[in-house]
Order: sequence, then C-alpha cells, then structure tokens
Amino acid sequence: MSDGFFPSRWVERPGHVTTNTGGGLPAGFRAAATAAGLKPDRALDLGMLVCDAEEVSSAARFTRSGVLAAPVLVTRERTRLEGVRVVVANSGNANAATGRQGLDEAARVQGAAAVAAGVPADRVAVASTGVIGVPLDGRAIVTALARARTSLHSHGDEDFARAIMTTDAFEKRASLTVELPSGRVQLAAQAKGAGMIEPAFATMLCFVQTDAALEPEAADLLLGVCVKRSFDRISVDGQLSTNDTVILMCSGSSGVRIEPESEDELRFGEALDALLRMLALMIVRDGEGAKRVGRVVVRGDDGELVERAARAVANSPLVRTALHGADPNWGRIAQAVGGALRDSGPLALDIAIEGIQVCTHGAAAPHDEAALREAAQGTEIEYEVGLPAADPARPVETEVFFSDLGHEYVTINAEYTT
Amino acid sequence: MSDGFFPSRWVERPGHVTTNTGGGLPAGFRAAATAAGLKPDRALDLGMLVCDAEEVSSAARFTRSGVLAAPVLVTRERTRLEGVRVVVANSGNANAATGRQGLDEAARVQGAAAVAAGVPADRVAVASTGVIGVPLDGRAIVTALARARTSLHSHGDEDFARAIMTTDAFEKRASLTVELPSGRVQLAAQAKGAGMIEPAFATMLCFVQTDAALEPEAADLLLGVCVKRSFDRISVDGQLSTNDTVILMCSGSSGVRIEPESEDELRFGEALDALLRMLALMIVRDGEGAKRVGRVVVRGDDGELVERAARAVANSPLVRTALHGADPNWGRIAQAVGGALRDSGPLALDIAIEGIQVCTHGAAAPHDEAALREAAQGTEIEYEVGLPAADPARPVETEVFFSDLGHEYVTINAEYTT
Repeated sequence: MSDGFFPSRWVERPGHVTTNTGGGLPAGFRAAATAAGLKPDRALDLGMLVCDAEEVSSAARFTRSGVLAAPVLVTRERTRLEGVRVVVANSGNANAATGRQGLDEAARVQGAAAVAAGVPADRVAVASTGVIGVPLDGRAIVTALARARTSLHSHGDEDFARAIMTTDAFEKRASLTVELPSGRVQLAAQAKGAGMIEPAFATMLCFVQTDAALEPEAADLLLGVCVKRSFDRISVDGQLSTNDTVILMCSGSSGVRIEPESEDELRFGEALDALLRMLALMIVRDGEGAKRVGRVVVRGDDGELVERAARAVANSPLVRTALHGADPNWGRIAQAVGGALRDSGPLALDIAIEGIQVCTHGAAAPHDEAALREAAQGTEIEYEVGLPAADPARPVETEVFFSDLGHEYVTINAEYTT
Repeated sequence: MSDGFFPSRWVERPGHVTTNTGGGLPAGFRAAATAAGLKPDRALDLGMLVCDAEEVSSAARFTRSGVLAAPVLVTRERTRLEGVRVVVANSGNANAATGRQGLDEAARVQGAAAVAAGVPADRVAVASTGVIGVPLDGRAIVTALARARTSLHSHGDEDFARAIMTTDAFEKRASLTVELPSGRVQLAAQAKGAGMIEPAFATMLCFVQTDAALEPEAADLLLGVCVKRSFDRISVDGQLSTNDTVILMCSGSSGVRIEPESEDELRFGEALDALLRMLALMIVRDGEGAKRVGRVVVRGDDGELVERAARAVANSPLVRTALHGADPNWGRIAQAVGGALRDSGPLALDIAIEGIQVCTHGAAAPHDEAALREAAQGTEIEYEVGLPAADPARPVETEVFFSDLGHEYVTINAEYTT
C-alpha cells in the first residue's frame, strides 16, 4: 500500500494526508480474523475489531432496504451506536431473510463477542455479508470468536479486511496519517463490496477507525456527510443490499481532540472524505469483473431530476456495456436520460464524453470521431450531461461513479449459487 | 407459422382464433420492403404498408421517453392518427437526437410516401429504429420508396417484418383468423424489438392490421387496453426507447362492423389481446441473446408499490443473471424488492418460484431443494411475490415478463457500435 492508494484522478490526496505503507490500525484498536467455516476451504470469514479505549465515540449508517438483514436490525436496535467498542463481521452468509432464527443468531454472536471482549453487549456491532436466505451458524462463530480474541493485534487490519471479502477481487483498506493543526492522528478503514451495490445513505461493509477524539455528534455529522459523498454516489449494478453497514470509531488514544467547527475538524473531514471516496471508487473498480469505471456528472436546475438522470445513466445496461466495449455510444446516454425523465420530451440535452461535446441541445454535435474513440479507451471515462435549465441562476449538479458491464459480471453472477 | 404462434403457457390462444399458416395481410392492406442502404450488406431496411380503403380508422401509442425521436414527433404532431393509411418504417437508423435536420428528414420521408401512395401527407405515419444520433439519409429512403411502391402486395408482411428488424434474432409477426358473431375477420401484426425494451404505454415498433371496421374511438380504446396488458408489461433491460411506436389500422374491407360494447368487440378484443401479449413475449424471448424468460407476479394492496417491486425484480441484473444460470437464488428477489421499497423494512415477504414456496413472512421456508433446482431449469420461470397487505380485502396484482441476462447480451451490446 503506497500513495498509490489514491490512483484515481477523481479523488485527490489532501496535502496533509500520507499513506502508511505498512498498514496498521490507529492507537487504541486491535483486530483479528479467523475461519469460522462459513466459507468453503477454511478461508478467513470472521473479523473481530476491538477498541481498547473506554471513552470511544462512534457513528453508523445502515442500508435503507425494505428487506433488512438480522445483523442490521440487531445493531440498529440493540447497540449504543454512539459508543461502539467491538465490531464482529462475517462473510459467507448475509443472515438476511432468516426470520426470528436469524435475529436470535445475530444476538447470540453479539453476546458472545461482548463476553470475549469484556464489554456490555450493547457496545457490540454485528455485520454480515454473503448469501441471503440461509440460516447462519452462530455457534460456529461463537467458537471462532474465542480464537480470534487471543490473536487481536494492532496490524490485524489486513486479515480483518480479507475476512469480510466475498466476490471482491482485491482488498479494500487504507491506513493514513493525518496532520492536524492540533497534532498528528491516524485514520484507517477496511471495506468490502463488489456486487449488489447501490448504497442509499450507507453501503456494503466499511469500518473506519481513528485515534482522534471526537464527540459522538461530530462523528455522526462527519460520517453522514462523507458517506453521502462517497458510498452514496456509486453503483455497480443498481442493487441496494440488505446488509450495508458503515461504522466510524474514534478511540481518542492520540490525545488529539477535534472540536466542533474547528480547523482540526475541517482537515479531518477532508481526510475522511478522501478516504471514503477512494474506497467507494475501489468498490466500483472491483465491480465484479469491471474493466472500466464511469463517472457521470449531470447538471440542471432541479435536484431531483438531476439525481434521477444520473442514476439512470449509471444503471443503464446499455451505457455500461458500451463502457465495457470502449464504445463512445452517446445515443445510449441520451436514451437513458430520456427514459428517466418521462413525459418531459423533447429534452434539449447537452452531452460530452471526456470533455468532447457530442450532443448539443438534443442534436448530434460535430466532433472529432477519432479523438472520441481514443478517449473512450481509458480506464476512467467521464460523461457530462446538461439538462435544459429553466433557472440557470440556480445550478445543481450531481455525480455517480459506476462500473461497466462485462462478461465477468455475468459469469460471476450466473454461477454464484444460493 | 403454425398454431405454434402461441407457444407460451402464459398466453392462451382464444378458441375463436386460428393462425393463418401462410401468413398474409387482412383485406385492404398491402406491404413491401426494400433495401435503402441504411443497413450494411443491402439487407432489407425499409418497409412500406398501405391501406387501400379510404375509410380506414386507426389508433396509435408512442414512447413516453423525454428524448423523442424525430419520426415520433412528426407522426404524433403532423399525422391524423385516427386515419393513418400509410406506414413507412426503417431500421438501421433511429433518427433520434438528430435535431432540426432529423425532423426535416422525417417530414421529407412522410411527404415522399404520401406522393408514392397517393394520399395526403397527414395520412402517413413514419417510424424508425436503429442507432441514435446519426443523421438519417432521407434522400435514400425517398428513392427506395419509389421501388417499394411498385412491389406492394398482400403477402408483403413477411418482408415488412424483416425490414424493421435490428438486433432481433427472429421475426415477430402473426396472421390470425378471428371468428366473430357477426362474421370472420383477419388480424395481422408485425413487431420488432430485442433490446432497449421497457415500454411505457407503447413499445418498440408494432404494426397491427385488421379488415374489421371499427370506429377510431373504439380502435383507440382497444389498442390502449391491450398495449397496457402486453408491451407495457415487459422488460428486456429496463431501457425505455426513444422510438417506440404501435399503430393499429382497420380497413373495414371484410364488411364486418364491430360495434362498441358488442359481443363482437369483446371477442375481437380477446384476439387482439392474445396477439399483442404473444408478440410482447416474443420480444422478451428474443431479448438480445436471452435463454430464459421470467414472469414475476407481485401481489399486495397498493398498486404503486406492487408495480415498483415488480419492475425492480424484472430489471435486477442479479435476478436476471441467476435466471440465466438456472439458479433459484430467491435471496436476490428479496433484495430487489427491498431495494425498491426503501425505508419500509423489515418487510414480511412471501416468495415462490414455480409454485414452490421458498420464503414466508420474510424468512426462508423449508422446501424441496432438488425440486426447486429442477424447476429452475425450464425456459419459462415464474416468480410470485407477496407483499404484506394491510388491507387484504383490496388485493392488487401485477405481472412483468423479463429476459435473463447472459453473455450474449453483453457481447451484442459491447460491440454494437455507434
């Protein structure tokens, strides 16, 4: 892990942030992972993360799906979300659509982790990812937790990140040093996600730790803003998951206290923002076989229409297959926007691909075809859409990052069995 | 074309309807097709259909996309839709996102067809399908129309159907005999469509002819109802097209007059309904490489939620890849419904696949796994979803037919160039 953690032109590394090439967790945190037998081949499938500081503050976001997994329900309803000290996350089973039994198993895991870590049960968050509708073997997790507990260490983030992977092609984690006016703090995160990705206010699984001290309200505010600008702006396949969970934990062990509305808070927020945006982009890049990543920027004067148009482009299988084939087929962008904004036609759209204007006021614009084809070969392609604005004085703009749709996605998903 | 025109268990052939194995148009209609050079290889790409009866009545439906193709705008605004006598339809170019010039070209085609057929321009409907954003060569069509005009004949429906195909893997047409209390009438239709399919009130291209006599109001009513139950209930890729057009023309040449609210109208409506539903299913079956067709039936007590859930299942790439892989992965059905009905959880869903109950009140239901796997191997798979109903006394139900998502779709769409 080098400063190559920020390889996208769409996320700049803030000047006061550096990557810890050796990884590792911020002071006050330890993690471990083990194989509980939920995945075949004894692969790592259970991660445990503990904050040793009693004065931890935390914040969380969850999926807005109407079908909520048991760990989401248990954590949302039984955990003190402003003071989470332990996270237990498993892959290999989502514990979703598992009814009463699923809730019991999630609670059993929560209770066992509390005993293992020596904290009250309401300080433990549980998270799961994997197949839906299969009973979770909570007993296997309880046994495995006893093992994990004995191997907790400050560089456990690598194993932890690996243990939460499902169809992910690569690990998604970072360990950053952030220079604040009041001192130096550490910031780390581990995420997973590759398919079933269209978060709404939260996403897949992402766990963030810092040794800065923040009030729970400040942590909640920062996490909320940053999630809105990161996981909330990506789509692999337009599919909101049943299990999305993001948790930020602040140990305070660095002794650096971040006061509300301070320069420290601003700088810390910039670092958290860059971190979460980059992790979100990594999920889109993974995208179950994705080869190219698209970014659609839509401008107009109506926030709801702009959002609808951007989502429609990002989730269009026609746009996504064209992205895969390096085909600058802008007619499909026009079609996707038109389909999203029904009964509003004819729309005088502007469309540009990689800065090359291809459509002006709804009609094809003369452009250098060879340059356009060349630009479409890249691994990051930017699409800009201008909706006709009745009120240009009040511009609104949004962005969505999305994966292409290629054979790998079909192979993975036609063969990933129940 | 045999009675094999009704090969789906989801569309029954009404007892008073038989298939004309030799094809052919109803009395009063002639058609022809030619190669105008819009498609490579001099393939048929221009169809012309003429009604010789002056007392024709007709009705039409168009796409609701916000990005409307020039032929849709011209036909909707300049054609007497209750008295269409000529249809000119081309493939190879959608004439969409082509601006002022596109409108001029569509009008030029309309005018030339009027001259060729000897009718006023406002009796000509024009339709296009193919690539978006490329100027249409109207001059080539005008030249080709002169050729087409001389080869119009009563069995021109076969060539006409072929001329409107784009990525279609097979022809979609039918010629039926309908026995009504007042006499025998003929009913024929030619359709195209394989991708960019999620019609809203109308669809791709479909032209329907009958030699029955109907008032324009009755034709409009019948077409509206039948389109709602057919093209409006299918999705290949959730992508609403810029060019969808359906036109019903009634020559009256059989001498059989269908009075409003008569037994004749009821029977004729049943035949039209079966015809359009079967053509719609053929489009889903084609589905740019589709191997299996799904039908999702959602029941509940709120029409809007039921519709949203059904569309979400039909358009979910996860559900569609599972359908492709014959994988009865019902967790993805639950996920898709949950994603569509956000902030409403936890939802106590019921789910059945091919009549096998797999999820009851939101939790996995014990079932015969082997029987389920066996059932998932078929070419038509039925999914039933029950939403929790607060008011079971007012049940609502909807259905959507959809294509699977396989490698063929990706190959076709990653390589179909601008």
